[in-house]
Amino acid sequence: MLEELKQKVYKANMMLKEKELIILTWGNASGIDREKGLVVIKPSGVPYERLKVGDMVVVDLDGNKIEGDLKPSSDTPTHLELYKNFKNIGGIVHTHSKWATMWAQAGRGIEAYGTTHADYFYGMIPCTRNLTEGEIELDYEKETGKVIVETFQSIDPDSIPSVLVKSHGPFSWGKDSIEAVNNALILEELAHIAYGSEHLSRGVLKRMDQNLLDTHYLRKHGKNAYYGQ
Amino acid sequence: MLEELKQKVYKANMMLKEKELIILTWGNASGIDREKGLVVIKPSGVPYERLKVGDMVVVDLDGNKIEGDLKPSSDTPTHLELYKNFKNIGGIVHTHSKWATMWAQAGRGIEAYGTTHADYFYGMIPCTRNLTEGEIELDYEKETGKVIVETFQSIDPDSIPSVLVKSHGPFSWGKDSIEAVNNALILEELAHIAYGSEHLSRGVLKRMDQNLLDTHYLRKHGKNAYYGQ
Amino acid sequence: MLEELKQKVYKANMMLKEKELIILTWGNASGIDREKGLVVIKPSGVPYERLKVGDMVVVDLDGNKIEGDLKPSSDTPTHLELYKNFKNIGGIVHTHSKWATMWAQAGRGIEAYGTTHADYFYGMIPCTRNLTEGEIELDYEKETGKVIVETFQSIDPDSIPSVLVKSHGPFSWGKDSIEAVNNALILEELAHIAYGSEHLSRGVLKRMDQNLLDTHYLRKHGKNAYYGQ
Amino acid sequence: MLEELKQKVYKANMMLKEKELIILTWGNASGIDREKGLVVIKPSGVPYERLKVGDMVVVDLDGNKIEGDLKPSSDTPTHLELYKNFKNIGGIVHTHSKWATMWAQAGRGIEAYGTTHADYFYGMIPCTRNLTEGEIELDYEKETGKVIVETFQSIDPDSIPSVLVKSHGPFSWGKDSIEAVNNALILEELAHIAYGSEHLSRGVLKRMDQNLLDTHYLRKHGKNAYYGQ
Repeated sequence: MLEELKQKVYKANMMLKEKELIILTWGNASGIDREKGLVVIKPSGVPYERLKVGDMVVVDLDGNKIEGDLKPSSDTPTHLELYKNFKNIGGIVHTHSKWATMWAQAGRGIEAYGTTHADYFYGMIPCTRNLTEGEIELDYEKETGKVIVETFQSIDPDSIPSVLVKSHGPFSWGKDSIEAVNNALILEELAHIAYGSEHLSRGVLKRMDQNLLDTHYLRKHGKNAYYGQ
Repeated sequence: MLEELKQKVYKANMMLKEKELIILTWGNASGIDREKGLVVIKPSGVPYERLKVGDMVVVDLDGNKIEGDLKPSSDTPTHLELYKNFKNIGGIVHTHSKWATMWAQAGRGIEAYGTTHADYFYGMIPCTRNLTEGEIELDYEKETGKVIVETFQSIDPDSIPSVLVKSHGPFSWGKDSIEAVNNALILEELAHIAYGSEHLSRGVLKRMDQNLLDTHYLRKHGKNAYYGQ
Repeated sequence: MLEELKQKVYKANMMLKEKELIILTWGNASGIDREKGLVVIKPSGVPYERLKVGDMVVVDLDGNKIEGDLKPSSDTPTHLELYKNFKNIGGIVHTHSKWATMWAQAGRGIEAYGTTHADYFYGMIPCTRNLTEGEIELDYEKETGKVIVETFQSIDPDSIPSVLVKSHGPFSWGKDSIEAVNNALILEELAHIAYGSEHLSRGVLKRMDQNLLDTHYLRKHGKNAYYGQ
Repeated sequence: MLEELKQKVYKANMMLKEKELIILTWGNASGIDREKGLVVIKPSGVPYERLKVGDMVVVDLDGNKIEGDLKPSSDTPTHLELYKNFKNIGGIVHTHSKWATMWAQAGRGIEAYGTTHADYFYGMIPCTRNLTEGEIELDYEKETGKVIVETFQSIDPDSIPSVLVKSHGPFSWGKDSIEAVNNALILEELAHIAYGSEHLSRGVLKRMDQNLLDTHYLRKHGKNAYYGQ
């Protein structure tokens, strides 16, 4: 069942380790089959050294386990909330990668300071608000998904494929789980570079020129893209 | 004698090197057999490249050498003090890992700024007070253990499994020496992320929401834990 | 056609990955055959894992493709502008390497703070001005080249073999593409060290002594050089 | 001639690369045979990938080449000045390692902030004064050695086995070239940790307690040392 998707999601999970985006079990990747309405996700708390393709868990969009011997990631309700609301995405990745997490803990979004950012993110990568006490107690992981969706009320998730969850860490997405990993990697790099640029500017750095942002984002994305083959 | 424990403690010591928590001989791991009241610990100043399982030293809780050709780690009296006072711990690790040591040298505990912290440490990771001149001259390594115990007078060492020793570096512990290494690794990661979050907040970062801290710590620990398999 | 040059440019591109100056497809290296007036450059957006010598693209100085199945790098017009104006250079490299990009995004040149800098760069590594809206819309990549040339109006590109493009990242060059990679690597190291030196000086660091700058640069470069064999 | 010493100095040079204390050709190691009054040193500007034991150059204390096909390191006169004045040292290493160089460029010595420092350096690691214009022009590398010696007028080089040369970088030494490499590695680690501790203290960090410094240094060094086997 969903063998190809399981292979891809397994690979995406292993890439998190190879790209040094996680240590221990600090992350998870998932992918969705939109036609069947089924999501494949990493099992909860299994060490990456022992993870196998067959360990991937299949759940439906209500969180019911459809296949798999193991419990799905405890963050599954967050993933499902994003799949239900961001209609074009095919894969999601959650990490606690260092530089992105610094910004999330500081409660700050990452402003677009240069073309490296503009090549992949069409503006600021936002940070969510705090969850309320009620939200945390009600259904913590699902509410995390809902506050991400709320943050994107007036932002297009297809052109800003990452978010920083306040006091927590980043979620990234893409057309599939592999692209989601790449976006998580790019986010980590941007988070580090932006940290340094702000420091070198002693707190007076403004976001990049809007024309330059447009040019770089649009040469890679959209109808008139001319980057790549 | 204690072959299984020696194997585990040896492995824990080698992990310190693999995880890049130490350079040269800057660290040591130990484990205890609570029934026999015996501790297995790394020998003093032996390069990790040459370390063998058979080099592990066995001492009793008074520090008498029971088995082994080599002298035990010079930090042995610190380890023993912790085993005597923290009744549930089974392994201890000492390193001079960079980011944790920065905080120790600055004399500052690491506040809980996010869920990465909350998943493993149920509140601030404390820093000890300075040792007095008398304590340093009397029995330095033993007094180091005593000041750690003093620091935990009103803190549960099972829910805060690390400490920063002022002007020195971190000690971490766990149910065995392998978990202690993992806690040392997590501490190092937290120390780096907290450093960055404070910097990005320009000195006004408050600790994370208490409800979020509770939820994250308790989803991994305690009776109602639901993380993992 | 130009087999030797293709081999060298291919090698230079692969070195960008090995030296960790790039992730994903974030860079490109080129080389020129001055006699034939032809430039060999990396194709656009091809992953380094799959890049082959035969993928290198040959263009003339007007940007016409002379040989190759793939589209040349989208930054080709920038490279061509530099080859046309900096008459002695034989290779160019563009990256988004972290530390150099921090300075570029901050819009700051890197001052000469020590002999590591002076051994390779005879003074400040400059940062370009912002492109105007008109320049960005007209012919973005070519105008990027032109603003670099403008920045070097009173600077000798042979003794300052790198530039930071504002809100973008570094370009480096050299007598061939391999030397350009080395200069990109050196720039990255200098960018990191200068960042730290400024921090340690709390904003009052002055550039190094001019006599020391002269001595170090000239012991490696020029008529009376005495470094090396 | 001096085969054993050449082997050791060659190994020390290669360790600089393995320990990531240098990139390209940015460093050199030497060793001395005190009885014969001869120094073995790396040749100038030879890439480490191609370096062979047989490339090591033998010079006397006046800098005359006694054996070797290649030119000795351009920093040879600095090494000789140190061997002539620091009577107990057997090996010297020069690098441009990142964190130590940051302090050197900032013109600041590294204060003793913790036991990691105290285990190897019995107090502050000093930074030299600027060379005068006359000194730079007269005999630059020799004068660099002389200003190091001047810096140690009232410091014991055996208990502070490193120095930061202003606007340049570190030199380290030891009983032989291998110990000198280890001291260079330790210095680099200390430089990074001290940088972070100062940052976390927002500029008000005082040096460590003198009693603690004494205890740590003396438990590893001197008559009553009890660290190691």
